Amino acid sequence: MKIVAAKQLLKANDQLAEENRRHFSEAGVFVVNLVGSPGCGKTTLLEGLFAASADRLAPAVIEGDIAGQIDAERIAKLNVPVVQINTDGACHLDAAMIAAAVEGFDLAAIDMLVIENVGNLVCTAGFDLGEHLRVVVLSVTEGDDKIAKYPAIFQRSDALLITKIDLLEHTNFDVDRAVADYRRLNADGQVFQVAALTGQAMDTLADWIVNQRKNQPDRV
Amino acid sequence: MKIVAAKQLLKANDQLAEENRRHFSEAGVFVVNLVGSPGCGKTTLLEGLFAASADRLAPAVIEGDIAGQIDAERIAKLNVPVVQINTDGACHLDAAMIAAAVEGFDLAAIDMLVIENVGNLVCTAGFDLGEHLRVVVLSVTEGDDKIAKYPAIFQRSDALLITKIDLLEHTNFDVDRAVADYRRLNADGQVFQVAALTGQAMDTLADWIVNQRKNQPDRV
Repeated sequence: MKIVAAKQLLKANDQLAEENRRHFSEAGVFVVNLVGSPGCGKTTLLEGLFAASADRLAPAVIEGDIAGQIDAERIAKLNVPVVQINTDGACHLDAAMIAAAVEGFDLAAIDMLVIENVGNLVCTAGFDLGEHLRVVVLSVTEGDDKIAKYPAIFQRSDALLITKIDLLEHTNFDVDRAVADYRRLNADGQVFQVAALTGQAMDTLADWIVNQRKNQPDRV
Repeated sequence: MKIVAAKQLLKANDQLAEENRRHFSEAGVFVVNLVGSPGCGKTTLLEGLFAASADRLAPAVIEGDIAGQIDAERIAKLNVPVVQINTDGACHLDAAMIAAAVEGFDLAAIDMLVIENVGNLVCTAGFDLGEHLRVVVLSVTEGDDKIAKYPAIFQRSDALLITKIDLLEHTNFDVDRAVADYRRLNADGQVFQVAALTGQAMDTLADWIVNQRKNQPDRV
């Protein structure tokens, strides 16, 4: 009985996610769902990405957090439109939350909407939000075994960003092992090794996202 | 309707957790529930803790993971009894899983059982497992804003371990801010700054846990 209910909830979420995606595509807004552990560097990555793509993409952000608005305040400082969702304890965003939050934006003025999900390498994996691209962040300080230990979210991603690569020498993280583990789960996902604080490979990442947006098949 | 069901589930878990705790206390086994993000350093911390307390505590471990047995294999190498729970996608351990896993141990030969929970700073907060001590791990590489962003788990903890303190100089983590945020949520929790790889403060932590076990009020 419980399992049926959970499946029904997921099915309802998937239908709403499809509606979100159609709405975004019609409005010409490319949507990225950014997922990863607490503290893997999602917000710092966005600060670096927006700097590296400032002349090419007009971004906006939905910040998903259990509580508070620390991340939204950081994004607002960049003069990027931002809506904060507080889940009040819930462990992931869902498509209904996104549909409500999107009301707060002028979509005509936006090229790319990044949804920064709640920091959670488990529960976020099951919920399509209506994004065009799902990007998972793994910092080198978390250890190279995390892909094997939390496979679902890596399997269902379009790209893996290995972040804080500037700290690599201070860790025992083996990039080759991480990439091999990712490849076992995901044959097509792009892999980037970036450091948002030093700017390493942020231009490459920005180029890729700009191209993904151009090649988005269902873009109107 | 959904909310009622969730509350009933939590109530059932709490009752089973109380039974677990009584069972552990009667057997003279002190139980620690170790929680934190993926990659915060929980398993490495256990390796360091067992080395620092080897002459004082006979430990055992329950490893909670979505998939695989990477952590259990690390613990088994120390000749410490270990049971691996695979949650098969579920985001936290619950009291029923612990009751089943405990069947795998000879409790008479154990002083302390550490339950390494699934890496998750959100969902683990709501589930009492029947532990005597809940210890939350936060690594300096995750950033000093995580306590404010994920308050529940820190509020309901007996100690905060700030780990990977050897990497502090390479980060912008402000220890004073983290401790102040913790104090706002939790007046009584102990705070330790440790580095399991270099051994920093591991003896202090081991002393504290040994004393907590001695002072456990409901210990038989």
